[in-house]
Amino acid sequence: MRAEPMTGLAPAAPQQGADFAQWMHRTAARTESALERLLPSATVVPQRLHEAMRYAVLGGGKRVRPLLVHAAGEVAGAPAAALDCAAAAVELIHAYSLVHDDMPCMDDDALRRGKPTVHVAYGEATAMLVGDALQALAFEALAAAPDGGAPTVAAAAMCAELARAAGSVGMAGGQSIDLDAVGRRLDLPALEDMHRRKTGAMLRVSVRLGALCGAAMPVERMAALTRYGEAIGLAFQVVDDILDVEGDSTTLGKTAGKDSASDKPTYVSLLGVAQSRRMAAALHREACDALAPLGAPAARLRGLADLIVLRSA
Amino acid sequence: MRAEPMTGLAPAAPQQGADFAQWMHRTAARTESALERLLPSATVVPQRLHEAMRYAVLGGGKRVRPLLVHAAGEVAGAPAAALDCAAAAVELIHAYSLVHDDMPCMDDDALRRGKPTVHVAYGEATAMLVGDALQALAFEALAAAPDGGAPTVAAAAMCAELARAAGSVGMAGGQSIDLDAVGRRLDLPALEDMHRRKTGAMLRVSVRLGALCGAAMPVERMAALTRYGEAIGLAFQVVDDILDVEGDSTTLGKTAGKDSASDKPTYVSLLGVAQSRRMAAALHREACDALAPLGAPAARLRGLADLIVLRSA
Repeated sequence: MRAEPMTGLAPAAPQQGADFAQWMHRTAARTESALERLLPSATVVPQRLHEAMRYAVLGGGKRVRPLLVHAAGEVAGAPAAALDCAAAAVELIHAYSLVHDDMPCMDDDALRRGKPTVHVAYGEATAMLVGDALQALAFEALAAAPDGGAPTVAAAAMCAELARAAGSVGMAGGQSIDLDAVGRRLDLPALEDMHRRKTGAMLRVSVRLGALCGAAMPVERMAALTRYGEAIGLAFQVVDDILDVEGDSTTLGKTAGKDSASDKPTYVSLLGVAQSRRMAAALHREACDALAPLGAPAARLRGLADLIVLRSA
Repeated sequence: MRAEPMTGLAPAAPQQGADFAQWMHRTAARTESALERLLPSATVVPQRLHEAMRYAVLGGGKRVRPLLVHAAGEVAGAPAAALDCAAAAVELIHAYSLVHDDMPCMDDDALRRGKPTVHVAYGEATAMLVGDALQALAFEALAAAPDGGAPTVAAAAMCAELARAAGSVGMAGGQSIDLDAVGRRLDLPALEDMHRRKTGAMLRVSVRLGALCGAAMPVERMAALTRYGEAIGLAFQVVDDILDVEGDSTTLGKTAGKDSASDKPTYVSLLGVAQSRRMAAALHREACDALAPLGAPAARLRGLADLIVLRSA
């Protein structure tokens, strides 16, 4: 896989390339600033916990979910300050899930984003609390108005959506299904159901929260964005499974071959690499088709669909 | 300690007794119903996670935090449906914290509310996910309007308050200070700071959320309720420390003598039993003094202050 384009996929048009890369860089940088502002300083009591929370969140990660929030926010004409809060919230949920997933009682992984995992660096008890506190901070980021303004009705609706996406019928539920699936053979619908929850729910909600940060939009536009979010959510996982087999640990920043070695069901183990690639390409087309009625303002979302399917890490 | 009244404490007036006991029973029962409705059925996928979440939450616990929500709600004339959501939210946060605290990397406790702890019954990985999913469900309970109505501005403000109380400067932060304190000698201000976060923040926010469920109240009334919440929050922990030394495991439903055996700093280890009792009594008076200007509608809160200081488990 690496960096070469996949069958059936057109890479981003050359004229979009530089502008899109700049937008990504700018958006990742403003997300980093928003996270930096939200996370208590490592000089604030309890210092060790805050230091570990910052270690878990700052200075790493592709920030795919925040990029989706901002790109969907462009479609909705949403203000940047609100998007920063929503982007930080989804990234904090993602970061907490990585900290807990890496722990010995779950995936037992020692390496994440090229650094020792939180429990290796700070101990298991602190890692547990880091995850717990990051989840709370995500809801604080979303619920508390940006710049100390009054809370809004939209914020409450967004908290409810984020909670469902992160909870037992969403991300945490997907993890639970994943646990129970080790060593078992899932069929394709069961594998898809697991990934729609485990990874898909948070990518989908990132798109929806970005849209909810703007003015109310017609139901069919929100439905189109949601279909896009669901397609790239699943594509993301298919590509992850391919990279787990074909990538190397240095590029990935985590242990490659982990899922296949631990006998977890994956798209590659079920379909093989070639068929998995075809599936990723089909989901990419599905995502782009969903965006068609949204026109030019959806350009960033198209770029992100390309990125998610073409990524090498 | 057990059930006998402590020096300086007037027990609830006899004529209040039966009515108060009925109110507690009724409120605990409606909290149980609210939790039962909010928690997905054990037949919903992923079944094992949902079964474990229900095991962790239903059919046990004193429901002190929900009682505080409802009692404060009476002062604010809040509607019962909104109070049920807030009560369930604080109890879900409390339940998640117990599941995670009991795990081997934290307190490593095998018994809770007289039953095997969640990780003993379901394994560590599931216990971690149970805690994670219960935290998300708490925010969903608070953010989503009762009976499927539209979300409200108050719900967003309440989510922000709950997040701060549960997070790194609140409950999770208190846990972190507690971890670092094992085997060290804390002075009284440091011990108090730890407990204001670890237990106090959630009791305080229970009172505040109950009040926020009603119509906006004058700042000084909210300040009085907050002072009450802070005083009983600390009293609760002082009494917990006394019970850890003087209670027995059967009455407590958890392992007695655990804190002293693990060399954790406690009020009893720092002040001795007699002085700890005097401190609990002083905090009880402080709580009741704060309620004085609120008159008759604060009767339930007075009853709960008595209960918290006089409890034997």
